[in-house]
Amino acid sequence: MNYQQVLDEIWQEVASLPPEGEVASYIPELAKVNPNAFGAHLCDVSGGHYAIGESEKKFSIQSISKVFSLTLAISLAGDPIWKRVGVEPSGDPFNSMIQLEFEQGIPRNPLINAGALVICDYLIGQLKDPKADYLRFIQKIAGDDTISYNYSVAASEKQWGHRNAAMANLMKAFGNIHHDIEKVLDLYFHICAIEMSCRQLAKTFLLYTFHGKVPHTGEQLLTLSQAKRLNAIMQTCGFYDEAGEFSFRVGLPGKSGVGGGIAAIHPGEYSVAVWSPRLNPKGNSFLGMKVLELLTTKTGRSIF
Amino acid sequence: MNYQQVLDEIWQEVASLPPEGEVASYIPELAKVNPNAFGAHLCDVSGGHYAIGESEKKFSIQSISKVFSLTLAISLAGDPIWKRVGVEPSGDPFNSMIQLEFEQGIPRNPLINAGALVICDYLIGQLKDPKADYLRFIQKIAGDDTISYNYSVAASEKQWGHRNAAMANLMKAFGNIHHDIEKVLDLYFHICAIEMSCRQLAKTFLLYTFHGKVPHTGEQLLTLSQAKRLNAIMQTCGFYDEAGEFSFRVGLPGKSGVGGGIAAIHPGEYSVAVWSPRLNPKGNSFLGMKVLELLTTKTGRSIF
Amino acid sequence: MNYQQVLDEIWQEVASLPPEGEVASYIPELAKVNPNAFGAHLCDVSGGHYAIGESEKKFSIQSISKVFSLTLAISLAGDPIWKRVGVEPSGDPFNSMIQLEFEQGIPRNPLINAGALVICDYLIGQLKDPKADYLRFIQKIAGDDTISYNYSVAASEKQWGHRNAAMANLMKAFGNIHHDIEKVLDLYFHICAIEMSCRQLAKTFLLYTFHGKVPHTGEQLLTLSQAKRLNAIMQTCGFYDEAGEFSFRVGLPGKSGVGGGIAAIHPGEYSVAVWSPRLNPKGNSFLGMKVLELLTTKTGRSIF
Amino acid sequence: MNYQQVLDEIWQEVASLPPEGEVASYIPELAKVNPNAFGAHLCDVSGGHYAIGESEKKFSIQSISKVFSLTLAISLAGDPIWKRVGVEPSGDPFNSMIQLEFEQGIPRNPLINAGALVICDYLIGQLKDPKADYLRFIQKIAGDDTISYNYSVAASEKQWGHRNAAMANLMKAFGNIHHDIEKVLDLYFHICAIEMSCRQLAKTFLLYTFHGKVPHTGEQLLTLSQAKRLNAIMQTCGFYDEAGEFSFRVGLPGKSGVGGGIAAIHPGEYSVAVWSPRLNPKGNSFLGMKVLELLTTKTGRSIF
Repeated sequence: MNYQQVLDEIWQEVASLPPEGEVASYIPELAKVNPNAFGAHLCDVSGGHYAIGESEKKFSIQSISKVFSLTLAISLAGDPIWKRVGVEPSGDPFNSMIQLEFEQGIPRNPLINAGALVICDYLIGQLKDPKADYLRFIQKIAGDDTISYNYSVAASEKQWGHRNAAMANLMKAFGNIHHDIEKVLDLYFHICAIEMSCRQLAKTFLLYTFHGKVPHTGEQLLTLSQAKRLNAIMQTCGFYDEAGEFSFRVGLPGKSGVGGGIAAIHPGEYSVAVWSPRLNPKGNSFLGMKVLELLTTKTGRSIF
Repeated sequence: MNYQQVLDEIWQEVASLPPEGEVASYIPELAKVNPNAFGAHLCDVSGGHYAIGESEKKFSIQSISKVFSLTLAISLAGDPIWKRVGVEPSGDPFNSMIQLEFEQGIPRNPLINAGALVICDYLIGQLKDPKADYLRFIQKIAGDDTISYNYSVAASEKQWGHRNAAMANLMKAFGNIHHDIEKVLDLYFHICAIEMSCRQLAKTFLLYTFHGKVPHTGEQLLTLSQAKRLNAIMQTCGFYDEAGEFSFRVGLPGKSGVGGGIAAIHPGEYSVAVWSPRLNPKGNSFLGMKVLELLTTKTGRSIF
Repeated sequence: MNYQQVLDEIWQEVASLPPEGEVASYIPELAKVNPNAFGAHLCDVSGGHYAIGESEKKFSIQSISKVFSLTLAISLAGDPIWKRVGVEPSGDPFNSMIQLEFEQGIPRNPLINAGALVICDYLIGQLKDPKADYLRFIQKIAGDDTISYNYSVAASEKQWGHRNAAMANLMKAFGNIHHDIEKVLDLYFHICAIEMSCRQLAKTFLLYTFHGKVPHTGEQLLTLSQAKRLNAIMQTCGFYDEAGEFSFRVGLPGKSGVGGGIAAIHPGEYSVAVWSPRLNPKGNSFLGMKVLELLTTKTGRSIF
Repeated sequence: MNYQQVLDEIWQEVASLPPEGEVASYIPELAKVNPNAFGAHLCDVSGGHYAIGESEKKFSIQSISKVFSLTLAISLAGDPIWKRVGVEPSGDPFNSMIQLEFEQGIPRNPLINAGALVICDYLIGQLKDPKADYLRFIQKIAGDDTISYNYSVAASEKQWGHRNAAMANLMKAFGNIHHDIEKVLDLYFHICAIEMSCRQLAKTFLLYTFHGKVPHTGEQLLTLSQAKRLNAIMQTCGFYDEAGEFSFRVGLPGKSGVGGGIAAIHPGEYSVAVWSPRLNPKGNSFLGMKVLELLTTKTGRSIF
């Protein structure tokens, strides 16, 4: 497959589309981004790299980072975390608090905010220096020690993070947060404030393309079963309230962030990252979804 | 009316009842109380004082304190606070978070926890030294400067107050908490940690018996309309999820606390406070309700 | 008290108010009414009758009828019905279905639609000819056999009553409706379609003024305790999501209907009915509430 | 791939498992089935048929039938139905009524009961003789005119279908049911009462394996895009509250029914149906899921 040609064609197609969607503005730091920024990067299993646009420019990966914190937790914990967080789609966008109330503080899955907070709480109990250790973990998978936190974004998230604080407190009331809430939130806001380029993101996602093996070191970080679990969770829970739509249009496991990034994989074939900050009403990158839809259409390979 | 005789008869009746209900135990400090403690005090409008049992012993008045913080807020604000908190019963006990979610951070009334938090937030904006000023306010109405906070209870409330913290954060996310959450919670937990005896409580509630006038100073602290509003709110919202049952059995405006206290008034006739720490399943003092039911039955005077 | 003079003054005051609020239009039959119709009738315990406006004109009493069906059920059942329906305010207007779902098919109180449906179900099990028997019951209390159903309204209610049908079915799924749903709904829609004048309504409500005794026959239809229960329920649950506001402004037990009627009582003193079809946003008669507020202000007698 | 050998191995493995789970008993007709019945049938794209156990015995396919009614609706309507029903997972099992209430009568997807009711409503508007036409439609895809309704099951469903009636009425109140509710429910209860054998079910599901083409007639019943949509919906919504778990363990689009059947497909490779009436706590066939898990493990081919 000539991935570069496919990406070039896609770039040409999406370049002619009128701009649609708005940049996330719930924190000032995110609103500063150029709304028309665009880049994509694809890594295939043969070691090929293919890119278009600003694929080397770093952006705030936001919720995509939850895949990495979950990966770290699974690699440390094995199965026990599934008693504290589910593996099913969350369904209703309006009811994060309501769902927690009725399901007694157990979040539906680890890719929604409440679930990611539980994962942070778990990591705090396992890591000596959680923020530093988490960063090193990503750097290791990516094989790239330039990846870092954007501390302004982390601070901004904290300043506007009252809904996350509400959820953490409610889960604490139900006994599903074990550590100090300030520490849990601090780790969470930093995890969301990781910056990576499309290249770095795609390279890191090769871990999932290779079923849990870090390709450049050969380390089997996750068991095959753990890797399958991660892919299944991304498939059903990775796109806020648009998992069904994404399955239909794209049909790949992946995760999006409100910074406009989407990372996805075709197991055994490639990983891909796209970045375009304008979001559709469901909070997913408008062009990002379009690019991935064209990719699976043009390559003729989705999971369906 | 020979209130002392009525109280004595009531005491005799309830003394023979088998103990029923459990002491509140959600914080260790409250669980330490003697479950069989009992006292009551009635003040009539002629200045008469009538008491039975441990009427001079201080206990944690808990949510009864919300009536005083609301009184202070109303006396400072007049009507503006009703844009930030409603005046209707909250109905469902299970859904404090859910109600806040759907009503966009506006609590149903100022006597539920969420509403009392909004009142605390308001007071922080109005008072120079909120905790000290609040205490002085109660001492002034009561004409008794021995009333004080129990700081162990306040600390204990804070340690176990994650659900309150969750609500404060959610309301902050909706823009209905204006000040720093830690300050709001700190004031709230102190307000709930006021200690008073039945005598002090009954004397303070004379304010509502006298339609907003502090009887021992003659100060008209609330307008007649404000006093009516307060009585109406106590009547419909003062007993958690048992307002209807209390209206039926007792038929007086009042407020209960999980410390086992209940204060109530017969407008223009008397105020009364009862204390017995064993609670019924709805969180109201088991004997407290019984005493008040007997009081209105024996005096033949309820509002119905 | 010169009630006629009071009513005349009130009429003069409200006549000068600009029209406010809209007539209920969820069924075409109700929308046909003259929006500016107005009447009131007061019966005192001495047998006095005082009236203003179109006090003899019949209108659709709608939910006010739920007080009578509850009265009939209580007089037949005594306490057992309280296992199937609560006595507490419903709180949230948006959540009739949600509340039923979470409280397993047990309505909060008998004056909301779900609760009135349970009462209908109960009556079907107790009465030989429920619709006829119910009508005769009202006629007996009122001492007036011209009271009747408006069959067009009943048919119209049925045609648009899918939400009521949804609640009946959900309660049936929870086992709290015992009879055929069609029969329950048919009785319910007829009960809501009773037509009475202000005079007839006020006269019927004397039953509650006299603590359960039918004044013109002397029959003690309800025990004192049952009558107190009914008054308490009206006080806390009689005005949709405006029980607290009504308590504050009016301070009398009562019940309103979307036909624009409100009936209320001052126990031991009088009963009163007002009719004005324009409703406020909470579904209560705009002028009706105003009239009753002026009545308790001018007579200086509310329960607070 | 020697599918017969794979199935034989699976049969041997599951035969040694202790019986687990209970037969659906919400209607008496379903409770009559032999809990230990077991069968499976696989059709590959080359026309091969492979079977184990009671693969020719008919059972109640229940909710699996919703895939066919959706297929018929899509083939008639194209896109318009997506305005009346969503394509996203429903998430919370407890809140079918709540979700409908908040999302104003629009069900989350067409494979939950509420969504299937909307599809029935749509079909009633499109078909001359809905029940007969629906049956003929299935017979045509299956190439088998012995498929039929079990009228006892349909009658039993109706007798116990109050929750479905509640949802239909609520959606009617929101304007999302256009036809008579009795007709909609009647069609719905019949659709759930279709009986098929594993062989018939697998053969019918070849339609989805072949991306919308009926293999034995060559008719392209659905466009490729429509077929992809159907597969995506099955993938994300086909297993009640276990879509994530099924994705992880099996990784194939499919649909289960409380009769103990599961049908699934590997696009372009095979269709498979399993039947074993004992259900896990989420309502999916215990052995059915086990068989499909072993199938994708042994063939080494899931979508992940």
